[in-house]
Amino acid sequence: MAEQTGNLTAPSGRIDFECSPETYRHWKLAFHGETAELIMNVDENATLFEGYQLKLNSYDLGVDIELADALQRLRFEHPEVKVVVLKSGKDRVFSAGANIRMLAGSSHGHKVNFCKFTNETRNGMEDSSEHSGQKFLCAVKGTAAGGGYELALSCDRILLADDGNATVSLPELPLLAVLPGTGGLTRVTDKRKVRRDLADAFCTTEEGVKGKRAVAWRLVDRTVSSSRFDATIVEMARELAAQSDRPSDATGISLTALARAIDGDRVVYSTVGVEIDRHGKRATIKVQGPTTPPPGTTAEIHAQGADFYPLRLSRELDDALLHLRLNEPAIGTLIFKSEGDPDLVLAYDALLAAHQSNWLVREVLNNWKRVLKRIDVTSRSLVALIEPGSCFAGTLAEIVVACDRAYMLDGRLEGDNRPEARLALSALNFGRYPMSNGITRLETRFLGEPESVGTAKARIGEPLAASDAAALGLVTESFDEVDWEDEVRIFLEERASFSADGLTGLEANLRFAGPETMETKIFGRLTAWQNWIFQRPNAVGPNGALKRYGSGVKGDFDPDRV
Amino acid sequence: MAEQTGNLTAPSGRIDFECSPETYRHWKLAFHGETAELIMNVDENATLFEGYQLKLNSYDLGVDIELADALQRLRFEHPEVKVVVLKSGKDRVFSAGANIRMLAGSSHGHKVNFCKFTNETRNGMEDSSEHSGQKFLCAVKGTAAGGGYELALSCDRILLADDGNATVSLPELPLLAVLPGTGGLTRVTDKRKVRRDLADAFCTTEEGVKGKRAVAWRLVDRTVSSSRFDATIVEMARELAAQSDRPSDATGISLTALARAIDGDRVVYSTVGVEIDRHGKRATIKVQGPTTPPPGTTAEIHAQGADFYPLRLSRELDDALLHLRLNEPAIGTLIFKSEGDPDLVLAYDALLAAHQSNWLVREVLNNWKRVLKRIDVTSRSLVALIEPGSCFAGTLAEIVVACDRAYMLDGRLEGDNRPEARLALSALNFGRYPMSNGITRLETRFLGEPESVGTAKARIGEPLAASDAAALGLVTESFDEVDWEDEVRIFLEERASFSADGLTGLEANLRFAGPETMETKIFGRLTAWQNWIFQRPNAVGPNGALKRYGSGVKGDFDPDRV
Repeated sequence: MAEQTGNLTAPSGRIDFECSPETYRHWKLAFHGETAELIMNVDENATLFEGYQLKLNSYDLGVDIELADALQRLRFEHPEVKVVVLKSGKDRVFSAGANIRMLAGSSHGHKVNFCKFTNETRNGMEDSSEHSGQKFLCAVKGTAAGGGYELALSCDRILLADDGNATVSLPELPLLAVLPGTGGLTRVTDKRKVRRDLADAFCTTEEGVKGKRAVAWRLVDRTVSSSRFDATIVEMARELAAQSDRPSDATGISLTALARAIDGDRVVYSTVGVEIDRHGKRATIKVQGPTTPPPGTTAEIHAQGADFYPLRLSRELDDALLHLRLNEPAIGTLIFKSEGDPDLVLAYDALLAAHQSNWLVREVLNNWKRVLKRIDVTSRSLVALIEPGSCFAGTLAEIVVACDRAYMLDGRLEGDNRPEARLALSALNFGRYPMSNGITRLETRFLGEPESVGTAKARIGEPLAASDAAALGLVTESFDEVDWEDEVRIFLEERASFSADGLTGLEANLRFAGPETMETKIFGRLTAWQNWIFQRPNAVGPNGALKRYGSGVKGDFDPDRV
Repeated sequence: MAEQTGNLTAPSGRIDFECSPETYRHWKLAFHGETAELIMNVDENATLFEGYQLKLNSYDLGVDIELADALQRLRFEHPEVKVVVLKSGKDRVFSAGANIRMLAGSSHGHKVNFCKFTNETRNGMEDSSEHSGQKFLCAVKGTAAGGGYELALSCDRILLADDGNATVSLPELPLLAVLPGTGGLTRVTDKRKVRRDLADAFCTTEEGVKGKRAVAWRLVDRTVSSSRFDATIVEMARELAAQSDRPSDATGISLTALARAIDGDRVVYSTVGVEIDRHGKRATIKVQGPTTPPPGTTAEIHAQGADFYPLRLSRELDDALLHLRLNEPAIGTLIFKSEGDPDLVLAYDALLAAHQSNWLVREVLNNWKRVLKRIDVTSRSLVALIEPGSCFAGTLAEIVVACDRAYMLDGRLEGDNRPEARLALSALNFGRYPMSNGITRLETRFLGEPESVGTAKARIGEPLAASDAAALGLVTESFDEVDWEDEVRIFLEERASFSADGLTGLEANLRFAGPETMETKIFGRLTAWQNWIFQRPNAVGPNGALKRYGSGVKGDFDPDRV
């Protein structure tokens, strides 16, 4: 029962989520007015780890990091793009999905976090379609297998070439004894609404389904001959573009490189600082409030571009979270702190709320929504410490509500002259940042006392003292200066003493009360089952299917059902 | 990465789900008019396996088998009981939950199936409350820890003694590094609607919560001093009884022992036969249709009692499923067949539909609903083979729709003179048997083409030939006599060649398209995470918390988060 450890090594020790089109190895973007082509052409030698090759447009996390970057740029740098056509740059294959040797050689933790990130990226595509007016058409020529087909499933429409060669398939179970791990099962049943026995047949058929049967089974939307393929793309893209509300005449902003310095146990950005306490198995993420008042117009926001405070902060926070997830697995607790002027944060929120219909402001808000969702599904204990000098207001207060616990200091610590802690809500806390369950964090929090949402709403904009915040149920507890340090210390020490896995499971259950959606199903049911399978000898044991893949010898399976 | 194997041995090799009050070792029923007391008083020496004692009202599967039996008898034998008061027969403890040494010594498969059965039993309590008018009040004196509190959570109301001793707790995570496995987390957030940070605090506090705080946190409904405890039970029971529509003047029927003979690889009941093919890793469950027309009146149904065909069949089928789950883990595929006159099955369905408001008929239908749900969450591949002479009609056709695949023979095999296969639907297929996702199996099946439900409904009562059934989408495929045997054989062999774990995960995802409910959350999110944790070294490894429990040495945890 020893923990499975990966045998792959990264050339550099650290996985970096920052990249830009100039350095892409695997993707190409081409722009044609309201349509962009996003072309997957994986460089088989440009792998994240050593020990495998990315043949047949298979991918590892490095490929997906570029994809996530490309999608961000399509949102922010290309407001004119209404439809993204996803294609393969290779002749005979669309994509073979996640690279199997990479999976076989990865640690359990890497596999799980790889799947989580790829899921977030694909959920983000659907979010763009629904909320940013950027639609996706997947044009499949050649085979789209496993993660390749799952990428197609994330698109609004799937076109399949009817050429005797192009197929879609989810061969994970028959081939590898694992599940399609990037939302495939959920999207097959709940998005494409494939009949369950046909879905069962599809997911147990290694060679997949092609042509008219793929349409009949609802696996793809259309299939056309090779000669009509390109014309049909144009036609389908035009249909999708007609559903988009993106502006034709706007100019994008440039997503400049993040200001970031990594120095041992510290990561310093312009608005975020991460400090790791290895002994305590925790990291403090300190968010800096804005230092200047917000601009007055959308033109000024546009002029600030990637420097616009809310956008800059959300990007830096996102990078910090991903860094901690992938590079710091032993850091089990994330402590959120903030520092700054809550009134300035509220002023920014007011600006965002006032200009929600502006395409750029909409993207900024949608990015915050995604980053906050990223916090929700981060399998670390999350605690907010609300101290003198902090600025947890509006959008930043949303971080507090995303945490498993929130503690607020009532008063000041000796020798600290900063203003007493105040928590404040803004209109954005009441609808603009839904969780993946489709309702707000405050609605989820107050499921048992829905009237408390209204009570909190009536206090929008008010600086709430610790006693008020506690009475409103916005924080777990408030402590005075006598108890503060001891209580916080005891909590953090206790948390670090618990089983990391137990906490992961506990938090994944407690954070998502209320309704379920396709997204929560993916992170709940599907991911949890996949993680279980990723622990089972039939998949990952020495004689399991993943290890034996390519050896010509089938997995040696324990037949027992549990 | 060797499979964890249990070191406990059952004195008899086979786990039996049949029992009756005369042989109960752990429970007592007492009747006071419209109220019954269900008293837990576990005999610590009457364990299912050797190697542990059931101290402090802790339980193993044997205790839960008796509980499930008691609940069935309350439904069928006691129509006059409107409220069941759940109590402890011990002074200082309500229940310590699932026995830890039993869990530590059990195989992974046993742990998972133990949790599944206990979940089904508790879901059944909620079903009785909602659909049978039998309400549950849990009266907690002493400590209700882990599964003890989860049992309370399944009740409509929880009363907690305010005596400085009585507490409720979910100490699984801090104590054992596992999750509360019987719906606790889901019910805390989604039924009791406890605020998530308080839920987090509650689930990480070994000693639990008592008195007024337990009420303030929504963990219990009321807390009263010892002196007012009994009077409050009476008061609360009266309130619940007022919500019940159970008849005061009806007489129950007796749930007589099942007619069952186990002979090697065969289990024979009066209406069900199970035949195991060990080499093929599959079992055939053949359901016999009724041999006589249904009775004409509810009085006659009552007179037949447990012999009434639909009730008899559902009880026998239930027992067969549980037997296969717990005693035959290597049998990965269940083949459902039937034999009899479909018209007679439809006649029984018509009788049931006509008398739905009769208390006994309602119980018979509710029992079928639960048995069909048991099929849905059985982690074996399910296939229906619809052959000449079969009687998959109405309620029995629901089994077909519960299967992962359904194949129908179009025509006859050489030398077989039985009538060609016909499938038929009844009104009961369109609402009376919802799945745990809250919609019918046909609605789930036709999520992508809801009009197909109406099309099928228009054919109620009609004997549908294979080609019709296939055209209506009710079966996966129909084969003629030339292809039948080969196609079926190939399917079964292929299925047996797949990884058992992969299939379990696949089926758990594909079977539950559409909406989610508390029940699907318990079997989806919660169970899947718990199963994952049941595989993790932090819990079950040689230095994990379960193995070290009671040794005085804490679990030695790998701090890495995945």
